Amino acid sequence: MGKAHANAMARLPMFFPDAPPIERHTLVGRDEGALADAAERFGFAHTATDWRDALDEVDVFYNLGPNHVHAEPSIAALEAGVPVLCEKPLAPTLDEAAAMRDAAAAADVPAGTAFNYRFVPAIRYAKGLIEDGELGDIRQVRGRYLQDWLVDPEAPWAWRMDADMAGSGALGDLGAHTIDLASFLVGDEVGGIDRLSGHLETFVDERPVYADGDSGEDGDGDDVDDRAVEEYRDVTVDDAYSAQVAYESGATGTFEATRFATGHKNDHTIEVHGSKGSLKFSLERLNELEVLREGDRGYQTVLVTDETDPYVDRWWPPGHVIGWEHTFVHENYEFLRAVSTGNVPDTFPTFEDGYEVQQILGAITESDERGRWVDL
Amino acid sequence: MGKAHANAMARLPMFFPDAPPIERHTLVGRDEGALADAAERFGFAHTATDWRDALDEVDVFYNLGPNHVHAEPSIAALEAGVPVLCEKPLAPTLDEAAAMRDAAAAADVPAGTAFNYRFVPAIRYAKGLIEDGELGDIRQVRGRYLQDWLVDPEAPWAWRMDADMAGSGALGDLGAHTIDLASFLVGDEVGGIDRLSGHLETFVDERPVYADGDSGEDGDGDDVDDRAVEEYRDVTVDDAYSAQVAYESGATGTFEATRFATGHKNDHTIEVHGSKGSLKFSLERLNELEVLREGDRGYQTVLVTDETDPYVDRWWPPGHVIGWEHTFVHENYEFLRAVSTGNVPDTFPTFEDGYEVQQILGAITESDERGRWVDL
Amino acid sequence: MGKAHANAMARLPMFFPDAPPIERHTLVGRDEGALADAAERFGFAHTATDWRDALDEVDVFYNLGPNHVHAEPSIAALEAGVPVLCEKPLAPTLDEAAAMRDAAAAADVPAGTAFNYRFVPAIRYAKGLIEDGELGDIRQVRGRYLQDWLVDPEAPWAWRMDADMAGSGALGDLGAHTIDLASFLVGDEVGGIDRLSGHLETFVDERPVYADGDSGEDGDGDDVDDRAVEEYRDVTVDDAYSAQVAYESGATGTFEATRFATGHKNDHTIEVHGSKGSLKFSLERLNELEVLREGDRGYQTVLVTDETDPYVDRWWPPGHVIGWEHTFVHENYEFLRAVSTGNVPDTFPTFEDGYEVQQILGAITESDERGRWVDL
Amino acid sequence: MGKAHANAMARLPMFFPDAPPIERHTLVGRDEGALADAAERFGFAHTATDWRDALDEVDVFYNLGPNHVHAEPSIAALEAGVPVLCEKPLAPTLDEAAAMRDAAAAADVPAGTAFNYRFVPAIRYAKGLIEDGELGDIRQVRGRYLQDWLVDPEAPWAWRMDADMAGSGALGDLGAHTIDLASFLVGDEVGGIDRLSGHLETFVDERPVYADGDSGEDGDGDDVDDRAVEEYRDVTVDDAYSAQVAYESGATGTFEATRFATGHKNDHTIEVHGSKGSLKFSLERLNELEVLREGDRGYQTVLVTDETDPYVDRWWPPGHVIGWEHTFVHENYEFLRAVSTGNVPDTFPTFEDGYEVQQILGAITESDERGRWVDL
Repeated sequence: MGKAHANAMARLPMFFPDAPPIERHTLVGRDEGALADAAERFGFAHTATDWRDALDEVDVFYNLGPNHVHAEPSIAALEAGVPVLCEKPLAPTLDEAAAMRDAAAAADVPAGTAFNYRFVPAIRYAKGLIEDGELGDIRQVRGRYLQDWLVDPEAPWAWRMDADMAGSGALGDLGAHTIDLASFLVGDEVGGIDRLSGHLETFVDERPVYADGDSGEDGDGDDVDDRAVEEYRDVTVDDAYSAQVAYESGATGTFEATRFATGHKNDHTIEVHGSKGSLKFSLERLNELEVLREGDRGYQTVLVTDETDPYVDRWWPPGHVIGWEHTFVHENYEFLRAVSTGNVPDTFPTFEDGYEVQQILGAITESDERGRWVDL
Repeated sequence: MGKAHANAMARLPMFFPDAPPIERHTLVGRDEGALADAAERFGFAHTATDWRDALDEVDVFYNLGPNHVHAEPSIAALEAGVPVLCEKPLAPTLDEAAAMRDAAAAADVPAGTAFNYRFVPAIRYAKGLIEDGELGDIRQVRGRYLQDWLVDPEAPWAWRMDADMAGSGALGDLGAHTIDLASFLVGDEVGGIDRLSGHLETFVDERPVYADGDSGEDGDGDDVDDRAVEEYRDVTVDDAYSAQVAYESGATGTFEATRFATGHKNDHTIEVHGSKGSLKFSLERLNELEVLREGDRGYQTVLVTDETDPYVDRWWPPGHVIGWEHTFVHENYEFLRAVSTGNVPDTFPTFEDGYEVQQILGAITESDERGRWVDL
Repeated sequence: MGKAHANAMARLPMFFPDAPPIERHTLVGRDEGALADAAERFGFAHTATDWRDALDEVDVFYNLGPNHVHAEPSIAALEAGVPVLCEKPLAPTLDEAAAMRDAAAAADVPAGTAFNYRFVPAIRYAKGLIEDGELGDIRQVRGRYLQDWLVDPEAPWAWRMDADMAGSGALGDLGAHTIDLASFLVGDEVGGIDRLSGHLETFVDERPVYADGDSGEDGDGDDVDDRAVEEYRDVTVDDAYSAQVAYESGATGTFEATRFATGHKNDHTIEVHGSKGSLKFSLERLNELEVLREGDRGYQTVLVTDETDPYVDRWWPPGHVIGWEHTFVHENYEFLRAVSTGNVPDTFPTFEDGYEVQQILGAITESDERGRWVDL
Repeated sequence: MGKAHANAMARLPMFFPDAPPIERHTLVGRDEGALADAAERFGFAHTATDWRDALDEVDVFYNLGPNHVHAEPSIAALEAGVPVLCEKPLAPTLDEAAAMRDAAAAADVPAGTAFNYRFVPAIRYAKGLIEDGELGDIRQVRGRYLQDWLVDPEAPWAWRMDADMAGSGALGDLGAHTIDLASFLVGDEVGGIDRLSGHLETFVDERPVYADGDSGEDGDGDDVDDRAVEEYRDVTVDDAYSAQVAYESGATGTFEATRFATGHKNDHTIEVHGSKGSLKFSLERLNELEVLREGDRGYQTVLVTDETDPYVDRWWPPGHVIGWEHTFVHENYEFLRAVSTGNVPDTFPTFEDGYEVQQILGAITESDERGRWVDL
């Protein structure tokens, strides 16, 4: 995430010259050696091992750490009048998320949640179609996020598998994106979620910690056999979740995510059916949108790379595709513009949005625990 | 359905000469005029307006009527020692389905439920891969069946929208297929469904009955505006359902169907993830199977039309695709062979299978009504 | 081919009751034993080992033999006033094709060339779009037909590899279909071919004849290793061809076919670009047509299975796909209707059409031999 | 092109820290005002309106201008011992290209032709498969490059339509990429091109020059109607080309490109068939490669974003796609490393490679003019 945001900031002057000028001032981390290397590579002038030291020095604070260190620094920054962009999900618990939302409400500086998929041109184009009524009344939404990095039971334990540090597993890590994207796209049409049913499942209950300290982040497990297992540690989060939701308007939705979908690396899809049309999006083909409008007999595979498409005029000619990282450039552009102008666009994901997602994640967990539908 | 089965029977001699010889003896229906025409076209020697009259005359009984006339004739036939092939879902209520299952258990003739999608070559090929362990331990199943023939709120009312006659809507009509297909493919690996959560939704509560008596079966609604609406009648079944399931093995599943997916005509898909591989099937491309095996880096798009593929050697050379109707030919072949030999293959869907599907449909409805997970 | 046509005839009464009644009278072949079995299976009342004996007995003559036995019987039939449907390509040589065309012109009964792909609903739908001007001025056509049954150099020799019997290889067997389909779709718009450049290539010059007499028709070569090679025989036709063409209108085309495209079984595709739109068709997904119309931003994947689509109302509801064999049913329907009514529809492929295709195949061969563009 | 290379250079330090340090020294252009703006935006310290002035100041020279200004400055730079990276095609005429090649041969500094598609990870992965023999003997290659920016006959005239400035049209602009990519992928296996047949076509012979001076580069023609036409100027290059080629090994190839393929923006595809396998690549889905290996039954859709894939470890985790611009980063990395180490990797496109492509383009043109196959 640090690399993705540092890169985004570095690219703004050439492609978004109307973004405010940026100085990459202080990089915060735990390990001083690694920090110095990273600062040099990512173009930061200073480093700090305590975020408190950095807060006084900067005009904007990016909180890109693990979920359990989102709340305290973000709240402190906001209380100090420093705008914050925080990675998702907002916090491991709903209480912390509420505190963050409240801090944001009390502050008069922007507080953003980094739901970067809102900034995919194809998603913006989709939102425009829905707002313009091209799909008619929205009836159904379907979202899923498939990865496979935990399919090997001997893939190493990592902080993302620990409830205290991560809050939840696939639910918070992947589901948060899907839930936010669905709200972003159809929330204005279908209202909030009225009630939902959730299901969490952990397929592998404990995982090895290896002597070489591989964090398991990459999940490839290639050299698992060569390594000594130091211990097995409990997996206390979900490997997969699913949810059924009823919206206020009567529309319905189904959502799921998993880290066990063999062969799927980063397959985030969202589909919407309305009374006049339908659309489908897949992150692994993020330059495309499948659109079916009134009168169409099949989905059009639209390459969303025309000059007139959102953000595209900043980049390359039609047909010259962009990648995952560009979503961060757009996100940083919008956030830093909001910081400099004081105006946060409606479409920018705030702490309030982050909290609402968290609330839904919490309701999914509660539904799973209680074995029943939960009202929101 | 009558046309599909009559066609299947007519094609057996040329392509499945090892099937028993068939005489299309008596066609049963209500309207004598229409019946005579249909009998001629579909090659039946006799007609009857009361199924009781036909039962004494025939060696095999096909029950292809609406759901609410499945139970009585099927049970009578079985009690008379006449083998029965009955369309799905088995019955509008679980009690009727149980009575049918019991009658089948008491009879010593085959009683089949017409889950024709079990007979798609690509599905058989998929089942073989799973049985051979090519996908490893099955972790997740995902099925959905999307149609759009009710998306227009003025599409005419039909018996399929009435709870008494149809039992349920998308759930029984479409969901029954998906539930059975999932059981067929992975049931041996993941065991039965342990518990589930269901959701039914009716988007349009009442629909017009038109003066011209259009049954609305085709759902095209083209000439809706020209027709006088006689009355509005209640829609008492679901337009869409979804379900989350937990299998005995710890595997999970998500299912859904809808008649409101604008742009989707008959889009039945099923996806399976195992510890070693994954697969995807779509009915609209029924000659293909997407398969990812251990060591593969992506799904192979397999055209399941090789000589060595199930049933394919009976038809055409590799690459010469077959259609939806061929599933009925295969189904009739297997059923009539079972009748003549007395041996029902494990893979053939029986009344017992039909009952189990019904039980799951019932649990989905119960879960929706009670707002909680239901154990099976 | 015999099986495909016999099946087509058998299916007409149920699905095309307005077709004339058909008696499968006499089946002609060389081997009396095999002939009797085939006649029984395919529903023929009589057999004959000399086509001359059959001619007096029948009202219609189907010539489905190898290319080198197309001319004589077809001409004899036409001279006897018997309508003929002949498989493609019309003849191994242009002279023979010309004689057949002349015989057809002199007769007053229908003489059809069995270009069955004209009868795919998606192709008919495509033709309608082009005729209606939906694609604007046609600029470019692209056709290719990919198979892989000869990729193994030890795949057995067969008559299709012999210039005397087959005329040409991939060119006549596959290219004839593509050339005819292109003419059918855009001929009215772009005129005839003005000039062309052709290329033929034989990758494997000789192939084994095996002791067990496998004709190599299936090309699977599975048990090659177990068999004794009796001799190697020359391959005197092309394994692959390509062509560049200039149409009278100024439009251009590129065509190719091969029996060496590893992984492609029967992959016949055709693509058309016009000033307003484009379309793409693939035989392996023959229920679909990719269409891009004026104002569209991408190709629509149209499932050509609606009631309003050509021939589809005879079959099944929307979304219920048909197969390769259905093209033969449509072809037989149109041909036999033409025989009974005396009116041959403009869209039906005649001997004249077959001759014109042959002329183009000949020009491709001549261009290859002379190393230069050839005018037509 | 300037933007693409400036961006590439700017990104090297963060992602390719082993690239030599780069100073963006002098930007050369004609219009002083535009130049100053561009220099600021793209991070250049100096500007010059005469390339001669820049040559003395720089260590490396990038020639990104129109084709007709490629030769003189590139040769001058090489004679001055300055490494050159020149955009493709190398020159409008074969003579100029030969002079450039000779200058490069005489110099002892790297001279690169900017065939950036060689640097797509999926293409590198494909090349590796071919080198490793995974496809067996290469039999056939198929390349095409489809765009549609000239489909409107009133799209404005631009320098790319002038033979003197551009040399050729779709042939040089698009075909050069395809020809080079084919050589890059299979050249070692199939040898050079033995002989070929070419076809050039200009669909629209003259085009308007508008009063507002729109260069027509973007080809959108949105506001055509509002603009006064000053004059019509001749289009003296091809709108589309095609070629058939015979390789030394006996393999064959077909190539084409067009600016008239309605609906296609930047659709560059290449397909290869070998005796054991096949592959397909499409630039609009540049993160993917379709691969069919021995034993596979269908193409695998491989997402070439794994850590082990070429260049990917420098970027993002598996499944996080990159875009068109990344090919320039890789190209600049390799070129600048070659400059600093003095070692030019075999895979880097040199002036020699550029010349060979030019020779093929020339032969295609000659073949078209002479109406016959041309030997190389």
